[in-house]
Amino acid sequence: MEFLHKDEHTDEGLIIIQANLDDMNPEWTSYITDLLLAEGANDVYWIPIIMKKGRPGVMLNVLTAEDRLPRMETVIFRETTTLGVRYIRTACHRLGRSFEKVETRFGVLSVKVGYHQGQAVQFAPEFRECEEAAKRYGVPLKDVYDEVRSRYMGRP
Amino acid sequence: MEFLHKDEHTDEGLIIIQANLDDMNPEWTSYITDLLLAEGANDVYWIPIIMKKGRPGVMLNVLTAEDRLPRMETVIFRETTTLGVRYIRTACHRLGRSFEKVETRFGVLSVKVGYHQGQAVQFAPEFRECEEAAKRYGVPLKDVYDEVRSRYMGRP
Amino acid sequence: MEFLHKDEHTDEGLIIIQANLDDMNPEWTSYITDLLLAEGANDVYWIPIIMKKGRPGVMLNVLTAEDRLPRMETVIFRETTTLGVRYIRTACHRLGRSFEKVETRFGVLSVKVGYHQGQAVQFAPEFRECEEAAKRYGVPLKDVYDEVRSRYMGRP
Amino acid sequence: MEFLHKDEHTDEGLIIIQANLDDMNPEWTSYITDLLLAEGANDVYWIPIIMKKGRPGVMLNVLTAEDRLPRMETVIFRETTTLGVRYIRTACHRLGRSFEKVETRFGVLSVKVGYHQGQAVQFAPEFRECEEAAKRYGVPLKDVYDEVRSRYMGRP
Amino acid sequence: MEFLHKDEHTDEGLIIIQANLDDMNPEWTSYITDLLLAEGANDVYWIPIIMKKGRPGVMLNVLTAEDRLPRMETVIFRETTTLGVRYIRTACHRLGRSFEKVETRFGVLSVKVGYHQGQAVQFAPEFRECEEAAKRYGVPLKDVYDEVRSRYMGRP
Amino acid sequence: MEFLHKDEHTDEGLIIIQANLDDMNPEWTSYITDLLLAEGANDVYWIPIIMKKGRPGVMLNVLTAEDRLPRMETVIFRETTTLGVRYIRTACHRLGRSFEKVETRFGVLSVKVGYHQGQAVQFAPEFRECEEAAKRYGVPLKDVYDEVRSRYMGRP
Repeated sequence: MEFLHKDEHTDEGLIIIQANLDDMNPEWTSYITDLLLAEGANDVYWIPIIMKKGRPGVMLNVLTAEDRLPRMETVIFRETTTLGVRYIRTACHRLGRSFEKVETRFGVLSVKVGYHQGQAVQFAPEFRECEEAAKRYGVPLKDVYDEVRSRYMGRP
Repeated sequence: MEFLHKDEHTDEGLIIIQANLDDMNPEWTSYITDLLLAEGANDVYWIPIIMKKGRPGVMLNVLTAEDRLPRMETVIFRETTTLGVRYIRTACHRLGRSFEKVETRFGVLSVKVGYHQGQAVQFAPEFRECEEAAKRYGVPLKDVYDEVRSRYMGRP
Repeated sequence: MEFLHKDEHTDEGLIIIQANLDDMNPEWTSYITDLLLAEGANDVYWIPIIMKKGRPGVMLNVLTAEDRLPRMETVIFRETTTLGVRYIRTACHRLGRSFEKVETRFGVLSVKVGYHQGQAVQFAPEFRECEEAAKRYGVPLKDVYDEVRSRYMGRP
Repeated sequence: MEFLHKDEHTDEGLIIIQANLDDMNPEWTSYITDLLLAEGANDVYWIPIIMKKGRPGVMLNVLTAEDRLPRMETVIFRETTTLGVRYIRTACHRLGRSFEKVETRFGVLSVKVGYHQGQAVQFAPEFRECEEAAKRYGVPLKDVYDEVRSRYMGRP
Repeated sequence: MEFLHKDEHTDEGLIIIQANLDDMNPEWTSYITDLLLAEGANDVYWIPIIMKKGRPGVMLNVLTAEDRLPRMETVIFRETTTLGVRYIRTACHRLGRSFEKVETRFGVLSVKVGYHQGQAVQFAPEFRECEEAAKRYGVPLKDVYDEVRSRYMGRP
Repeated sequence: MEFLHKDEHTDEGLIIIQANLDDMNPEWTSYITDLLLAEGANDVYWIPIIMKKGRPGVMLNVLTAEDRLPRMETVIFRETTTLGVRYIRTACHRLGRSFEKVETRFGVLSVKVGYHQGQAVQFAPEFRECEEAAKRYGVPLKDVYDEVRSRYMGRP
């Protein structure tokens, strides 16, 4: 059993950068998400909103450590159409995490486990590995998930 | 009491035109809505959707009589970025309608009444008139609505 | 093993009733959903849309057999604020269904199984029973789901 | 007239807990909402978002006093699938509130009134009571609302 | 070339006012947006959310300088149905801005340019002027945008 | 100039397959989209909806030729959690299409052109090629788009 424990902790000093976009080509969103993650964003997500004159816009949200703010802004101003961004201070409480391996009909697959106050409260199959296994074995992705979850629960 | 009765009926032969847009500037949506209504669309509405590659797009929906289809398409192809549209056949059941006048603290205002099988089942203050009255009298728009609804209910 | 088989089939002659609502109190939506289901609607769902003048409205959707159309409309016209509805013809392909029982740490619980061309392609724990078990045993709802899914998979 | 005045005030020291969920069964959302409210959350709401790889996720939002943070987190980590939460500091400006009774065709019903700087700026029929009255009297829910609003406006 | 430079800067001390609305007539939203902008709001936007009992509500968001908070609240409490609002502290990083003129087939039209660290990173045709030109010349709005963008790029 | 003309036409006999999903892991959506497109779906898109008990679900939409219906259903029943699907008949009006090449600072890039009644009404840079060019040349994606659009407009 592999056990890369990362302790439960709270990251203070994080920032959510927000930009409301009502004039940007939506084709560019996933490209922008990937660039921001590559520059070290903790998370990137988009919220459908309704802006002035009833325009169906999107709000870009980037969660980042404060010291990466300039790198995030460089990407945002280069790649989106915004003329400004907002900052909201936030802190993140992250569960302790480990990756465990389980043997399944589809090979050895990883489960990400989350610990709150020393107790395992979450476990999730790794999407990328399950996707690969589903394709390799020609089975539904949901069957791989069920198999992994069931094996993890039934482990000795 | 003004009474412009329009009987309850069903319009067969209507069409919903749909276009999924993942590369259009959202600034243009209200302009396009207004052009389509000016050309005789019965209704125009936009639905936020998630398209290929996770793009946050919008689906344009235009409800129209079949004989106005070419005029609608001319606007859609000229003004949006779509390379095609879908048609869905539909029929509309419309309530009978009348406009009535009620006296209020904010002047005489109209109420649109809807009739199903001869019975009044809906009544709604006219937005435009209420908006004007709210500005003229310097009162909240919601107060004008409440006044109109209350007066309509208490009419002799 | 209980086996209440309902064969896979297609229901022709169904109708989706749609009503775009831009002036209705959203507090009423779940009440309306429940009334429509009580009158025999097959399904009821709401879609956030953007209507004329950029209003954030909702579109009511009611899936129903054609012979229940009048009962559905009676509810819609009584309870919503709409002045009309649209009809879209549809057919529903429904999987064969059975309910099976599985023994779990939280008692005997039901699983709904779906069959496509004679093969079980879906199985889902019953929400209501799992919710009750989670409360009775003081465990997370997700643990009940995992237990049921795992037991169903490992059944003889 | 019953008058349970609660003065207008601002609650400092509140927190919005946010969790982006891209791998949770949506069946569980209302169950989770109810648990959080039962533990003392001030408010719970969900925002549709688009996450990495274009996944249509939801963002859980819990508004809470800071001293209830641990209880909220216990529920969130137990019941959702998240591996972490964000905190955003906030303050809430709450209107003064009273409940008044009005006599209506459907019995005596409550109205919640909101006061800003000593002036009544809001009034709202109580949903639960109106729902009950609508069922008991066999009338549309919207008629009960209209009756209550009209009676409240016309009270001596 | 007109050049009204406004330097890149960060506005500290801004506030996002939020109100979750589950019982408001959506017809009023654009009226409320306009009132808030007229009172000096920096931005106003609406987010579709899911509230208690699964109600499809909207969250009003108003971005404002702190000294305009009372004026914003006066509008919000008068015009919406909320019994309270939340405050979230924020800061806005705004690009430097200039307006430039370009000669096009449709007359002289403005482009808003955004500067980050002295470099032009954004440029956007002015919606209102393009809309007017499209109507005056009887051409698609998108053609006006393309013409303006192309001319701006090809300027000497 | 490459010119692969595909004439403007209407495809009758298409079907929109819809499935409302309130219990599916959203992680699986893009995987499912890709499988359906690989099996020959014309388009796949997801609509956020609100289902029974206020659940924030998604509606899968698959646009397909009727003869591919069984292949689409095989994927849907295998990979999603639905117990049934709906069919809606539709027709698609597709513009004539050609691909043209334009020389730009970032190499020769393609433009997809749409023709309505013999007239070019749309043109769009190819996302994949622009993305590649942006990465290769280290420039913003939006600059590549602007360059391609401008060059296309200014071609001899």
